[in-house]
Amino acid sequence: MSQAQDNSNDPLHAKKKAWSGRFSEPVDAFVLRYTASVDFDKRMALVDIDGSVAHATMLAKVGVISEQDLADIKRGMAQIREEIQTGKFEWQLELEDVHLNIEARLTALIGDAGKRLHTGRSRNDQVATDIRLYLRGEIDEIIRRVEHLQEVLVAQAEKNYNVIMPGFTHMQVAQPVTFGHHMLAYVEMLERDHARLIDLRHRVNSSPLGAAALAGTTYPIDREYTAKLLGFETVAQNSLDAVSDRDFAIEFCAAASLIMAHISRLSEELVIWMSQRFGFIKLPDRFTTGSSIMPQKKNPDVPETARGKSGRVYGDLMSMLTLMKGTPLAYNKDFQEDKEPVFDAIDTVKDTLRAFCDMMAGVEPQPEAMHQAAQMGFPTATDLADYLVRHGVPFRTAHDIVGQTVRAAAERKCGLEELPLEVLQSFCDKIEADVYPVLSLEGSVKARNHVGGTAPNQVLAQVKRWEEIFNSRK
Amino acid sequence: MSQAQDNSNDPLHAKKKAWSGRFSEPVDAFVLRYTASVDFDKRMALVDIDGSVAHATMLAKVGVISEQDLADIKRGMAQIREEIQTGKFEWQLELEDVHLNIEARLTALIGDAGKRLHTGRSRNDQVATDIRLYLRGEIDEIIRRVEHLQEVLVAQAEKNYNVIMPGFTHMQVAQPVTFGHHMLAYVEMLERDHARLIDLRHRVNSSPLGAAALAGTTYPIDREYTAKLLGFETVAQNSLDAVSDRDFAIEFCAAASLIMAHISRLSEELVIWMSQRFGFIKLPDRFTTGSSIMPQKKNPDVPETARGKSGRVYGDLMSMLTLMKGTPLAYNKDFQEDKEPVFDAIDTVKDTLRAFCDMMAGVEPQPEAMHQAAQMGFPTATDLADYLVRHGVPFRTAHDIVGQTVRAAAERKCGLEELPLEVLQSFCDKIEADVYPVLSLEGSVKARNHVGGTAPNQVLAQVKRWEEIFNSRK
Amino acid sequence: MSQAQDNSNDPLHAKKKAWSGRFSEPVDAFVLRYTASVDFDKRMALVDIDGSVAHATMLAKVGVISEQDLADIKRGMAQIREEIQTGKFEWQLELEDVHLNIEARLTALIGDAGKRLHTGRSRNDQVATDIRLYLRGEIDEIIRRVEHLQEVLVAQAEKNYNVIMPGFTHMQVAQPVTFGHHMLAYVEMLERDHARLIDLRHRVNSSPLGAAALAGTTYPIDREYTAKLLGFETVAQNSLDAVSDRDFAIEFCAAASLIMAHISRLSEELVIWMSQRFGFIKLPDRFTTGSSIMPQKKNPDVPETARGKSGRVYGDLMSMLTLMKGTPLAYNKDFQEDKEPVFDAIDTVKDTLRAFCDMMAGVEPQPEAMHQAAQMGFPTATDLADYLVRHGVPFRTAHDIVGQTVRAAAERKCGLEELPLEVLQSFCDKIEADVYPVLSLEGSVKARNHVGGTAPNQVLAQVKRWEEIFNSRK
Amino acid sequence: MSQAQDNSNDPLHAKKKAWSGRFSEPVDAFVLRYTASVDFDKRMALVDIDGSVAHATMLAKVGVISEQDLADIKRGMAQIREEIQTGKFEWQLELEDVHLNIEARLTALIGDAGKRLHTGRSRNDQVATDIRLYLRGEIDEIIRRVEHLQEVLVAQAEKNYNVIMPGFTHMQVAQPVTFGHHMLAYVEMLERDHARLIDLRHRVNSSPLGAAALAGTTYPIDREYTAKLLGFETVAQNSLDAVSDRDFAIEFCAAASLIMAHISRLSEELVIWMSQRFGFIKLPDRFTTGSSIMPQKKNPDVPETARGKSGRVYGDLMSMLTLMKGTPLAYNKDFQEDKEPVFDAIDTVKDTLRAFCDMMAGVEPQPEAMHQAAQMGFPTATDLADYLVRHGVPFRTAHDIVGQTVRAAAERKCGLEELPLEVLQSFCDKIEADVYPVLSLEGSVKARNHVGGTAPNQVLAQVKRWEEIFNSRK
Repeated sequence: MSQAQDNSNDPLHAKKKAWSGRFSEPVDAFVLRYTASVDFDKRMALVDIDGSVAHATMLAKVGVISEQDLADIKRGMAQIREEIQTGKFEWQLELEDVHLNIEARLTALIGDAGKRLHTGRSRNDQVATDIRLYLRGEIDEIIRRVEHLQEVLVAQAEKNYNVIMPGFTHMQVAQPVTFGHHMLAYVEMLERDHARLIDLRHRVNSSPLGAAALAGTTYPIDREYTAKLLGFETVAQNSLDAVSDRDFAIEFCAAASLIMAHISRLSEELVIWMSQRFGFIKLPDRFTTGSSIMPQKKNPDVPETARGKSGRVYGDLMSMLTLMKGTPLAYNKDFQEDKEPVFDAIDTVKDTLRAFCDMMAGVEPQPEAMHQAAQMGFPTATDLADYLVRHGVPFRTAHDIVGQTVRAAAERKCGLEELPLEVLQSFCDKIEADVYPVLSLEGSVKARNHVGGTAPNQVLAQVKRWEEIFNSRK
Repeated sequence: MSQAQDNSNDPLHAKKKAWSGRFSEPVDAFVLRYTASVDFDKRMALVDIDGSVAHATMLAKVGVISEQDLADIKRGMAQIREEIQTGKFEWQLELEDVHLNIEARLTALIGDAGKRLHTGRSRNDQVATDIRLYLRGEIDEIIRRVEHLQEVLVAQAEKNYNVIMPGFTHMQVAQPVTFGHHMLAYVEMLERDHARLIDLRHRVNSSPLGAAALAGTTYPIDREYTAKLLGFETVAQNSLDAVSDRDFAIEFCAAASLIMAHISRLSEELVIWMSQRFGFIKLPDRFTTGSSIMPQKKNPDVPETARGKSGRVYGDLMSMLTLMKGTPLAYNKDFQEDKEPVFDAIDTVKDTLRAFCDMMAGVEPQPEAMHQAAQMGFPTATDLADYLVRHGVPFRTAHDIVGQTVRAAAERKCGLEELPLEVLQSFCDKIEADVYPVLSLEGSVKARNHVGGTAPNQVLAQVKRWEEIFNSRK
Repeated sequence: MSQAQDNSNDPLHAKKKAWSGRFSEPVDAFVLRYTASVDFDKRMALVDIDGSVAHATMLAKVGVISEQDLADIKRGMAQIREEIQTGKFEWQLELEDVHLNIEARLTALIGDAGKRLHTGRSRNDQVATDIRLYLRGEIDEIIRRVEHLQEVLVAQAEKNYNVIMPGFTHMQVAQPVTFGHHMLAYVEMLERDHARLIDLRHRVNSSPLGAAALAGTTYPIDREYTAKLLGFETVAQNSLDAVSDRDFAIEFCAAASLIMAHISRLSEELVIWMSQRFGFIKLPDRFTTGSSIMPQKKNPDVPETARGKSGRVYGDLMSMLTLMKGTPLAYNKDFQEDKEPVFDAIDTVKDTLRAFCDMMAGVEPQPEAMHQAAQMGFPTATDLADYLVRHGVPFRTAHDIVGQTVRAAAERKCGLEELPLEVLQSFCDKIEADVYPVLSLEGSVKARNHVGGTAPNQVLAQVKRWEEIFNSRK
Repeated sequence: MSQAQDNSNDPLHAKKKAWSGRFSEPVDAFVLRYTASVDFDKRMALVDIDGSVAHATMLAKVGVISEQDLADIKRGMAQIREEIQTGKFEWQLELEDVHLNIEARLTALIGDAGKRLHTGRSRNDQVATDIRLYLRGEIDEIIRRVEHLQEVLVAQAEKNYNVIMPGFTHMQVAQPVTFGHHMLAYVEMLERDHARLIDLRHRVNSSPLGAAALAGTTYPIDREYTAKLLGFETVAQNSLDAVSDRDFAIEFCAAASLIMAHISRLSEELVIWMSQRFGFIKLPDRFTTGSSIMPQKKNPDVPETARGKSGRVYGDLMSMLTLMKGTPLAYNKDFQEDKEPVFDAIDTVKDTLRAFCDMMAGVEPQPEAMHQAAQMGFPTATDLADYLVRHGVPFRTAHDIVGQTVRAAAERKCGLEELPLEVLQSFCDKIEADVYPVLSLEGSVKARNHVGGTAPNQVLAQVKRWEEIFNSRK
């Protein structure tokens, strides 16, 4: 009799039983729950069915299963799909994951044909196929939401193409810009997000089906055919890689992190702009919370929540990177932990984009407060220097002159544009009355009139460019 | 009529409606869901009740509410506690969070007294109190589980105090050690985790109650009294800090990450030890999964899952650190995002420790395989050099001699201990027959006989030390 | 002849040579550089010498080396220390690391005794000893700098104990607080950092010396003695753990991350306070950069740089956590990568704390701007409600009354305290002339008069408490 | 006299002086060092010159500077380039960064024309241009190294296309694969890295020049022209975005992290394969370290170092993501902290790829050890089941039969292929003598003969596919 079986005198065994006794859940049930995934992977149920039907169709085509088997499988799967969509499907933790739950139900419904479905396939390539199909669909939805948010921001830019606000560097007033120009900066960021999503979608959209457990299968499968049925662009060319690759999940989390980084920056600005000292914008009430005793208090809940959620997606990315670090080929159980971070990143990004589509459409800039703020700190001093250079003054000399002029204005507690002409001329006799439009906020923004500049007509040109891009996407 | 109200001709408005129309959920319901927390913060319900009862008790003591009010509040809260514990409480998303859900129910049950509960308090200090109480309880449970796992490992060490295995550096056989010694290395790691948890518990266990929204309150509250009622060790000394501090959550996630780092290392070893090429241990079946056609295949699911979950807790830590970066005082809505990472870290660590308590008790080392593996690679060469030094040979000369000896053994494809005495003496005439015990694995481990060394009696001494520590904890 | 030696016809070999030819550096030199550490670990040189001298002293005490050897080693090490401190020591990349550089030089200086130094020791326990000694010294310096910054902030709090500023939640004006109170919030944060550093210092301060390569040594070493000589509090109790533990580095990086998180929050506030729309503070010129043409522009370079550097230390933490994930016992070469993140975290935290000690001493709050800002948004509405409750009005009714009052003030575009008494009384006849002090900012802050509240005398009480703490530290 | 100026009686001032006195470095010098970047950004010197020459060429083209100015600038820059390349350039910390160092030297060399260079440009767009140019060059080098490593691995695959080794899942022997197939899995991973680098290079390769400080400039600049001169594909379309975008740095660090994740996986395998229990490969000595007394010990230093360095690049990514979180538009000083993480990621990836190019070319698989290991654990059981299915046995029945057969072999302690035919037939009478090739390792790998399968001829087909790809890249 082995030591393992007769442990009546084993103090370790006695202790162990005692410890287990402390827990409310028996060991086996607990281990099952610890290692099972059905609670979270059932959201891949419909793509799991898609994958199985494609696999069965291929098996029938190459003669591994009969046409009757295929018909049975399709019928059974149609019923299961219906049961899932109507919430009637009974998920069982004992069946571990979404795949075994569906397969068990299929066999219960159609018998032997169900048992033939898994021929030439393994859970390893099946789960890799499912998550790619699922993620592909979600990427497409995220792309749409990125596009929507771009459209909302471009509409705001069009509406406010010549609303002047202070442009900040280091949170210090630097030069005047337009609110439209500011909105378009975020459209550019989102465009890079858009491009990244499209790029990574190609890498997601490759079929691991047929890699089987790790080495391929001995059945005469047609991998190109299942790939085509499932809309995959390519077939993964190495079975070991196919079952152990989670790059797509990491790359998606990285792209999602960048989206959230952009949203966190916009959120930061919205929160500051809403603060009473700025008062640059108003937000629709439903994106804020108030207070029963301070009726003018509007807490910018949605941007704050979104800013906070950036950390969440960064965390998902770090989870995935850590997960894959140092794991040998091919499949390891660790990889099951890929799903929750990816699902969380998907949900967070989708919800956040939707909230911002709604909210940004409702942002009301307050031109007066912005204009007033833009006048602080001599924001057109650079324009005066440029004026002097255009009138033949060397650059460094021009800078010195402007420095003296600004000091004079500061002493009088007025803006540069409020200094009388004779005062201006006392610093440089090349200054004429035509300097005043140059010194105005309006003159300053108008003068930055080149591609990417803040001039109102450049903003309108960008709006037009974007509308053409949006049209080309339809 | 303002532009905001009459937007019938506003293309932006029209677009916005169209976009919203695309989504299945109306804007207001969506925003509510996006910013609400009741789905996840309801797990703090019982400590929320504890906090409210303590607050009410204090209010009655200082005369802000009547004894009758207090009695009503206690009665109502007892009923709500019962409803929650029996699953009868109806959580409402519209009421945003756990606090408002409970307060609304209280007022429904007891009327006006319920409305007086919130006097001198704000949700900001309330939520800070709740999460500290909740986390404190979970830390205590995690401490217990760390202690359990230590006990399991010490029991293994005791049982296998003289089972020899190869000690590795760089995954290369270096010197023989004992399995007991190896197990005790993890007990040390867990002891540091234990100390960290105890240290950080003091910082968790400080009462923010009374900080109100951010500045304190005008009521004559007695903060020491509520702190005492709730078992807090100290009272937070600054109201702005009290409502905006989330250090404890970050520090907890950092400690949790280290626990998982340790578990990931042990997991890695278990996985390698289970691999057929090693075969150092057997795991009870229920911690592995098999395969219907490869009956001897045992996939070490639990260690692999645990190793993967280390990434998850690292991600939680990164979420929390990012969340707090650059947030101004005092409370910001972002902070609501503290809960899910902390809860996830708690759950992951608790479950993983439990799984390891069960599993490590069942690990069966395979002494034969270990002994055989320990003999590869001349692991006692250092012992021979030390032998020569003890017999007066200078260290460097000793090293040269050992190098030649090893080469001779390698040519004969035997171990050092298998070389005949005359061969050994041909390299150095100070070698006598008493060298053989030195060259044996048993001799090697026995000779490392100082505090922390791998000698079996040192392992037993450590076991004794640990048992005293365990006893002192009871 | 083996394939490896005769590869003249091997296309792989030919390709390989071609590839290597592309690089400017020969393979061997490159691999040496890739795996060497002397470029960064030489900053541990002095503690390496301390450790060696202690080890030699112990070896002499237990009789493993002679007193003459010890005297030689001490003499040689004194000279090497001198050479290093005066910059004359010649570091050689070929000698890989700081340990071998010093040992080689020692042997060159004193001959055979140098060769005996390494008896009963290995590089594995040596490097673990060095990094702990080095880090311990740096922790002490960081603790001092944390204390300094606390002193600077307490001095600011004392000076500005009754300077009123708006307290924000959600960046919205909520209730008035004092600048002193605000400064003290950061002193609390730093106090937690202080406590964490002291806690983790105990875990750093444990001696791995004697663990040798991984299993201990056969020499009759006295580990307690070397520990005592080096000021270690405890002796690591398990040799496998001792050479492979890097917890202390991770825990330090986590504590450093929290310090930087706090600094990032203060930096964010400084940047916002410096913005023209706020104008709450002035910073000394040397902590800002200006612009030649915008003389009033002061870019808050130091706080911005510090805020950015928070990411750096978070990254160091993540590096360390990733590094240790899934590494088997005992020593692995990976661990050499622990040094640069730890050194970077040390340098960043030390420099940042110093910059803040200097800068925060020079912050000049602007009471007028703060006071004006605090008046926006009816920040004393809560005080009015509390006034009514004290006069017997039920809480909810009080809230309704305040709501109406605020609306009236908003219509008149005045503050609550500017409403005539008869207007106030029209909402509730319990209001008397004594309400006006309650509605003032001064009255509001004074009324929050309990431990942790913002009342000026509470701020002074905290200042006193801190000064006692500071004195007790001296 | 203001309080700030007369602080003779100010205790804070006195304290401050005292504290500063403690430090070895004066405040101003320290602040300069804390905020300066020249120590690390000087590696962008040559691209800074490229950018300046292009800018000057454009200024001359549009008539803002004279042809003579341009000639002077070109001449001066040629000399500076020479000085830098020969190490004669004197970098000055007081001049803060690489840009001001070069500009100051230019003005010293050529006088007034140097002062005109900065017309229509700001440091904000200049630094953004420099880092993009620099990173673009490094990406190209990394792409080349990825390609080299792919070529090395394909050459190994070709050489070992039919060397059988065990394929693992969960580190358990699963099915036999070939070493060539295994190598090709990493070629696939690197191909995704390659694609990601090419994708992100387009986003790096966009010109911010002309965005000036944040809003564009009033000079009639030609941004398309400078972009073309510098090889940029596009012109950044929004000036606010152009100076504050660091997406490219984050995206690069994410791609670099994935490269390191792949390398960490390969490293893990190499370390395990080198372990005595596996003995699957030999590494050339120069990639390992030995030990003077254990001549057969080869520590796999290079793979271990590389595995450790994965954490470093993950940390760089996390630094960058944290850095950008919540930063408002447009430029903030925080962004200066982008350089060191990016430079560190570049250096680490480049060095690691080079080390692996050299090392992987020298890996010598040990076919005997691999073959022997592949025979453990009935790795062809799946093949037997497939054989039965092909002979008309239903799948589940086939599985049962195989289960019994494996049990019989296990009892006899032999492989399936060693069971006599009559024994096999006793489990199923459809088994004939043609089953033996099926049960052999060779038969098993040959049978997995479809795209991506492990069959030797599939490996050769993949080798051919890769060679065509490599040729198309030349």
